[in-house]
Amino acid sequence: MKKANCLVAQSGGPTAAINATLAGVCEAALMSEAIDGIFGGLNGIEGIINGKTVDLKRMLECDINISRLKTTPSSFLGSCRYKLKSHEAAPDDYKKIFDLFKSLNIKYLFYIGGNDSMDTILKLKNYQSNIDDDEKVTLIGVPKTVDNDLCCVDHTPGFGSAAKYIATSIKEIAWDTAVYDMESILVAEVMGRNAGWLALSAGLARDIKGRCVSDLIYLPENPFDLNTLIEDIKKVKVNKKQIVITVSEGIRYSDGTLVSESKDKDVFGHGQLGGAAKTVAQYIKFKLGVKVRAVEINVLQRCAGHCLSKTDIDESVLMGRKAVECAVNGDTGVMITNKRKEGTEYNLDLGCENIELIANFEKTVPESYMNHEKNGISEEGLNYLLPLVEGEVNMEYKEGTPVYIKLEDIY
Amino acid sequence: MKKANCLVAQSGGPTAAINATLAGVCEAALMSEAIDGIFGGLNGIEGIINGKTVDLKRMLECDINISRLKTTPSSFLGSCRYKLKSHEAAPDDYKKIFDLFKSLNIKYLFYIGGNDSMDTILKLKNYQSNIDDDEKVTLIGVPKTVDNDLCCVDHTPGFGSAAKYIATSIKEIAWDTAVYDMESILVAEVMGRNAGWLALSAGLARDIKGRCVSDLIYLPENPFDLNTLIEDIKKVKVNKKQIVITVSEGIRYSDGTLVSESKDKDVFGHGQLGGAAKTVAQYIKFKLGVKVRAVEINVLQRCAGHCLSKTDIDESVLMGRKAVECAVNGDTGVMITNKRKEGTEYNLDLGCENIELIANFEKTVPESYMNHEKNGISEEGLNYLLPLVEGEVNMEYKEGTPVYIKLEDIY
Repeated sequence: MKKANCLVAQSGGPTAAINATLAGVCEAALMSEAIDGIFGGLNGIEGIINGKTVDLKRMLECDINISRLKTTPSSFLGSCRYKLKSHEAAPDDYKKIFDLFKSLNIKYLFYIGGNDSMDTILKLKNYQSNIDDDEKVTLIGVPKTVDNDLCCVDHTPGFGSAAKYIATSIKEIAWDTAVYDMESILVAEVMGRNAGWLALSAGLARDIKGRCVSDLIYLPENPFDLNTLIEDIKKVKVNKKQIVITVSEGIRYSDGTLVSESKDKDVFGHGQLGGAAKTVAQYIKFKLGVKVRAVEINVLQRCAGHCLSKTDIDESVLMGRKAVECAVNGDTGVMITNKRKEGTEYNLDLGCENIELIANFEKTVPESYMNHEKNGISEEGLNYLLPLVEGEVNMEYKEGTPVYIKLEDIY
Repeated sequence: MKKANCLVAQSGGPTAAINATLAGVCEAALMSEAIDGIFGGLNGIEGIINGKTVDLKRMLECDINISRLKTTPSSFLGSCRYKLKSHEAAPDDYKKIFDLFKSLNIKYLFYIGGNDSMDTILKLKNYQSNIDDDEKVTLIGVPKTVDNDLCCVDHTPGFGSAAKYIATSIKEIAWDTAVYDMESILVAEVMGRNAGWLALSAGLARDIKGRCVSDLIYLPENPFDLNTLIEDIKKVKVNKKQIVITVSEGIRYSDGTLVSESKDKDVFGHGQLGGAAKTVAQYIKFKLGVKVRAVEINVLQRCAGHCLSKTDIDESVLMGRKAVECAVNGDTGVMITNKRKEGTEYNLDLGCENIELIANFEKTVPESYMNHEKNGISEEGLNYLLPLVEGEVNMEYKEGTPVYIKLEDIY
């Protein structure tokens, strides 16, 4: 078989598992009889347009680098938020991209990312329908996003580690909140503009008796109502002095307004500070007069390499390897997928699906994953989430902190 | 030897290691020939005044409970912020406390806490100087505080785990920040009103080449100056596109005003949002026009049980055990201390010191632990911090999150 080179790049927001997928692509490419050189595109499609590539092969032939890459969070090759236009609107971009492919003898592109990245694959696929066969490149999208909002997959790589970090953090916040013998309400905010998967994962924060320690959970999927909130709190308060509430950043009132963008000063008595959790906390204080605190779970929810789900990392590597397998077997214009097998034990089938069915669609949390009151997780939701956060990764530490690698340090 | 009972309680803010110290006290008390019953006082001295105690002995004879207690963050017995008045000002409080001691045959009090808690021990000691010997109780303070600001100790239990969590978080934030090919500045805020120990620990966040990834660090010990800040940033910008800055919540201008309380709208062009990091970020944006982000490292810095320093937990247990040893040997009115032994290897001597030398004093970061420019850690500071964050704890996980216990669940 005549060998050709491949190009792999990463795009969109960082996750704790995107480098595990990169490592999986590289491992399989190194073993493949169809692939020779392995190039990394820097800063996603934007860097590729600007001709920024590195030779990954030499670097990743060293086992320790591959091993460290799997547990290094963020995007090893850098990322971009560049929205590739159609080839009619930006022919120069396409010329640069395909000139680069030609000059480096690239026949396979692996693009690891979320929804915008899959749109990039779709645009390249559309462009290729009008060019000569020998100029075409095998186009493979590999999913990653902490938002878990891609269609045609059971879940996205990166989500499991984010869910584990959020559940752990909410648990520790609940323990922290419970120490003083006084009434208090803590409102924690997690990422998720339209899909509430990350807020749902607060439902995993449970005590040894299996009770969820986030007493209330609100998702963008359900209209948020301040009166209902107060009623919900009153019910919890009957049995509990210290209450923890988790909200998605994207919760909205029934008229579609984001809670974080509330402008109505009258509702609160004074101006509002910004952020869904702050708005909610401020309203609770105004209505109930109890001690409140708003905590924004910060960027660590997407890049906490010290709190990885072993399941997530292992699967992310496998998805990367599968991408190479599909590419060599002739699939193109697809994204790698995972499906949960039928049966009581958790197992995945990996495959691929046409990019048209994925790009620009968004998967939200099904109604059945929430309880009847839409303020907590259901048994079905719990059963969906639990396998994704299982297992811990035995990390390499040096002088008290995890060892993470940077391209410029090992290249 | 005639046996008597002991009472142990916890006070002040939660830490990730205060329960390890409680476990140490209980382990040693269970073994001691001088101690029979082990009572826990709930919610510190406030709960003791109100007669709220539990029998810990039965519960903690179970090995799994002791083992889980050591790695459960927050305060297992609850806490308080109650400032005990002098016995002249609040004679009733003292009557209630000593009536409780008498009714439960308490001869030893172990009080685990920070500076306010040591003041409680001091007040009880002063009170005891005027009562009959047979009413006296052996008074032992056991240190804990993430702030590391107690005198007469090399460091305080709880600080090492907080420092490890902060260093790890800053490292992951730096990795997250570096993904886009654009100039940006992230300002992270950590706890510390007067003492900058926690901000100093950002100096532990280093890459595999040993370079600190928090490019600038500002402590409350040094007057904060906005012009100097901008000059410092300009120097870093020469070599780096994405900059990470760590500040203590307590940084102050040379006139003593807290940066977080800046009221001068003219300096910023508009109103200020609150928090030291937000103020600093806003000023940077105003002066340099680059993309900025402020991140407040949340309460997890004091209660992240999933990111413990093994050294911290092991030492916290030993400090608890030492408290019982000192009590039984006749020490009273003291706090348990640790001193670093001379020599290149890290080793501690445990002992105790009169509470008068500790209560109401505050230990800040020595000048020599910072670099010459007072915007980063020195080699000496690094050598001080490094042993405190060494080692990881092999945690018990269940369904994806660490197992933590609550009093009401196992009692």
